[in-house]
Amino acid sequence: MSESLPRAGCPFCHPAIREAVFFKSGGFMAIYNIAPVLPGHVLVVPEAHKTSLMELKEEEILAFFMTARQATLIVLNAFHTDAFDWSVQEKPEAGQSIEHLHLHIVPRRRKDLPEAGDWYPAVHKNDGEVIDSMKRRKLASDDMKIIIGKLRQVAHAAGRETNFT
Amino acid sequence: MSESLPRAGCPFCHPAIREAVFFKSGGFMAIYNIAPVLPGHVLVVPEAHKTSLMELKEEEILAFFMTARQATLIVLNAFHTDAFDWSVQEKPEAGQSIEHLHLHIVPRRRKDLPEAGDWYPAVHKNDGEVIDSMKRRKLASDDMKIIIGKLRQVAHAAGRETNFT
Repeated sequence: MSESLPRAGCPFCHPAIREAVFFKSGGFMAIYNIAPVLPGHVLVVPEAHKTSLMELKEEEILAFFMTARQATLIVLNAFHTDAFDWSVQEKPEAGQSIEHLHLHIVPRRRKDLPEAGDWYPAVHKNDGEVIDSMKRRKLASDDMKIIIGKLRQVAHAAGRETNFT
Repeated sequence: MSESLPRAGCPFCHPAIREAVFFKSGGFMAIYNIAPVLPGHVLVVPEAHKTSLMELKEEEILAFFMTARQATLIVLNAFHTDAFDWSVQEKPEAGQSIEHLHLHIVPRRRKDLPEAGDWYPAVHKNDGEVIDSMKRRKLASDDMKIIIGKLRQVAHAAGRETNFT
């Protein structure tokens, strides 16, 4: 990654984010979403503070989406499905509420929601609530530990890089 | 691209899709969506029939997302904004109704929808309607020609590959 300083107040730059990381590769990390819209909802983010897809060099584009694909395989394995959604929001007008580039990965199952597209407005609702931590619908700390432990185990079993520190 | 035969009945494999292409690179093409959920809604698809992100080789992952980024820059230029959403649906459970891999790009503007996430359920509604051409909400042919002409012009002015045949 090119150099970008950690940004004060950015949740993805905060050292505590390391606890949520289950896979890292090429300057990008996959983290479990503390407020998942569906079970297995994870995010892939650059380790360095970048706000935009347009800032990435060609080799970073490759690393971002290869990391996302590997994270997706881990999540699909852990949550026993082969269906998923990916999405990126760029700029607040598009619904980007955390100004650190992030790709949503949401594993899907038949009839998990009344309509297949229903998870997406929920992402925006959640993203908004992350800004205001009083409203944030968090997983309990123990639940997070169990899920992240399982994802790290799957990542490890698949022989993937599992350097979380 | 590795070899994948055109699939009968697939709208992205049909020769007529060429008319909607405004940018091509590395085995991927950017096409204007005949049923846009917002102005400037385009798709990036592999030229060969592939159904899944998981089928792509590493160099195809790079080509897919570099093509998507270049297509995004063209669309943002033509539609005068810098905000956009990207999304991919994998498998019918996730809302993939056309079984040919496709990335949605939707340029966004402030207050273009009541809630930032509202475009996404509309994608699913539209995708479903594409299957049944009787219900399909199409742009008029002349409107399509004007928009695609503009996008090709922007692509050309930017010195990008514009080989549409």
